[in-house]
Amino acid sequence: MSAEEKIEIHRGLKGVYFERSGTTFIDGKAGELRYRGYSIHDLAQHSSFEETAYLLLHGELPSTAELAAFDAKLKAARRLPAPILAVIETMKQAHPMDVLRTAVSALAGFEPDTYDNSIDATRDKGIRLASQVPMIVAAHEAIRNGRAVPEPDMALSHAANFLWMITGRKPSPQGAQLMDRDLILHAEHGSNASSFTARVVIGTEATLHAAMTAAIAALSGPAHGGAAEDVMRMAQEIGEPERAAAYVKAKRAAGEAVTGFGHRVYRTEDPRARHMRDGVETLSREMGEPKWFAILQAVVDAMKPYARFGVNVNVDFYSGVIYYLNGISPDLFVPIFAVGRVPGWTVQCIEQLHNNILIRPLTLYDGPEPREYRDISQR
Amino acid sequence: MSAEEKIEIHRGLKGVYFERSGTTFIDGKAGELRYRGYSIHDLAQHSSFEETAYLLLHGELPSTAELAAFDAKLKAARRLPAPILAVIETMKQAHPMDVLRTAVSALAGFEPDTYDNSIDATRDKGIRLASQVPMIVAAHEAIRNGRAVPEPDMALSHAANFLWMITGRKPSPQGAQLMDRDLILHAEHGSNASSFTARVVIGTEATLHAAMTAAIAALSGPAHGGAAEDVMRMAQEIGEPERAAAYVKAKRAAGEAVTGFGHRVYRTEDPRARHMRDGVETLSREMGEPKWFAILQAVVDAMKPYARFGVNVNVDFYSGVIYYLNGISPDLFVPIFAVGRVPGWTVQCIEQLHNNILIRPLTLYDGPEPREYRDISQR
Repeated sequence: MSAEEKIEIHRGLKGVYFERSGTTFIDGKAGELRYRGYSIHDLAQHSSFEETAYLLLHGELPSTAELAAFDAKLKAARRLPAPILAVIETMKQAHPMDVLRTAVSALAGFEPDTYDNSIDATRDKGIRLASQVPMIVAAHEAIRNGRAVPEPDMALSHAANFLWMITGRKPSPQGAQLMDRDLILHAEHGSNASSFTARVVIGTEATLHAAMTAAIAALSGPAHGGAAEDVMRMAQEIGEPERAAAYVKAKRAAGEAVTGFGHRVYRTEDPRARHMRDGVETLSREMGEPKWFAILQAVVDAMKPYARFGVNVNVDFYSGVIYYLNGISPDLFVPIFAVGRVPGWTVQCIEQLHNNILIRPLTLYDGPEPREYRDISQR
Repeated sequence: MSAEEKIEIHRGLKGVYFERSGTTFIDGKAGELRYRGYSIHDLAQHSSFEETAYLLLHGELPSTAELAAFDAKLKAARRLPAPILAVIETMKQAHPMDVLRTAVSALAGFEPDTYDNSIDATRDKGIRLASQVPMIVAAHEAIRNGRAVPEPDMALSHAANFLWMITGRKPSPQGAQLMDRDLILHAEHGSNASSFTARVVIGTEATLHAAMTAAIAALSGPAHGGAAEDVMRMAQEIGEPERAAAYVKAKRAAGEAVTGFGHRVYRTEDPRARHMRDGVETLSREMGEPKWFAILQAVVDAMKPYARFGVNVNVDFYSGVIYYLNGISPDLFVPIFAVGRVPGWTVQCIEQLHNNILIRPLTLYDGPEPREYRDISQR
């Protein structure tokens, strides 16, 4: 046996630890998730996106004055530079994730501190991006539908203003609360593929805008954030709760995954799912469309036999239906995930910058042996 | 000792193998580099960028007919969609790497096969991007200098046409050959930070455009591609060959790295460096500016004591001076690296798609213990 044959390949880097992180605790077996020591359940029920973003970026929950100052920074960034609107207009027919990635990348050209990689500047840029990302999603949605881009409403919270700008309608208190909760639940999740991408990029000492552009690129993949827009499609395909069992059976027989189930980390139900489930149930009843909740629950029932293999509902399973009931186009579901995740990406970049290193694993060569170059006339 | 304390942290994922790759063989100790079994020295001396790109993307050197067909595909993609020129115009004052990343991201909106992740479609998109990336760099350079974007010259090779479009002057045969060689040397380099980023992104089943946007983001960092533009700055700062030794001594005394030296993989001289060195020597003599070569060699001499610690000249050390002597602005040095690397990023994405998996390593939590949420009025 040669030396090379003994080299272990860690496909997908599964189970490999590459860094320490003081932000998010996840216990996949117990189904536990905490930001900075606070249970996701407490935050989902009692906090706001603004407060949770502060917690993630500063490490502690804010005082009233601290939260007000943070909120003012967020609000000040609710207006996009005009050239960014021009870039969105130029590619308005593209998928919203392609537009979002491009516009965030373009923002690097209009941010005075793009090349300041200090911790303070990076945090402040992350706060601005937390407002700019939803503004890009909302501006694109307005532009592609031929509406004027709505003026941000400074009296509204982060979540409520986002809903206002994306739909052109002032949201109900319940609608705004549900979006707020959705953004809290998506705000950070340890070393997922997009946060890891952000760390790899800033590991080269590139800028936060470079890292966040790359994170959005990673999030767009169906194996990461991309699943959210598929769940609603599945629910529509199933059509009636009675047909859920047959649908699941056919999928499993074909060896295909059922959308919205399974997660690289969780072996129990995703702890974020319950808060979304409650929201779907309430909202679909209130809006006179209880069918959607019933279909999803029928899918969950049909999937029960697989729970013991660790295949459980994940957070995307319910969120898509909430967006649908709010009248939001399915291709915006993943961009909304991005809207929530900006603080998480930023804090991961800040952690990386604190003790930075180039992230560069290896591939093991299994290609041709050395061979001689021959001129094209001799091939 | 708790279980957690026994967990090994692989910072920077140094020495961790995450995948097999049949494309590039690198022996950092021996200073060897081969694409698909062919020595980088043979390719640098006898091949062309077009042929090397074919080799990387198809696995074998092309016949005359195969090369002609491949070249026709490259040439057909030399014209950018008009909206991409508009995006470049909108942010023409930004750093060329920010513009390149944004424009490649925007191309996703104008490529009919963006969402086709089959191997064949991915390869064809990669071939188009191999032409579009230099066209973006050249168009930006023209636009920001108030020149009309030159028409591509279909009689010129990939490298010569790039030089023509970037400078607005038809290059000398030697100038074109040196750029061609430079692009060959930069075409692929195993699992570096940008190629790894591309794999992480396409590992989520995101598109080639998403992966390549992220790769450009990673390349922009000074710890990866970003060093190229610093070497010329260093040479200018040194000013005269006699001052190189004092410069190096001062840098080392301050504990600072000398630009253009050291590499995560190579412990010998970077095998690509010699081909660039020969070019710098010839070109700086021909252009009546032998000083630049003399300064660089004086720096190399002064750095000799550190060679036994594995700190050796890397490929970026010489390339910047070549660009400078060709009249190319220093902030284009990293974009030119990107121009060369497109086939490498594409082939890494193709390898990843062949046997795809989500790349998601772990971070070890070292943050606060569980704590109780208190209302803001009680903080």
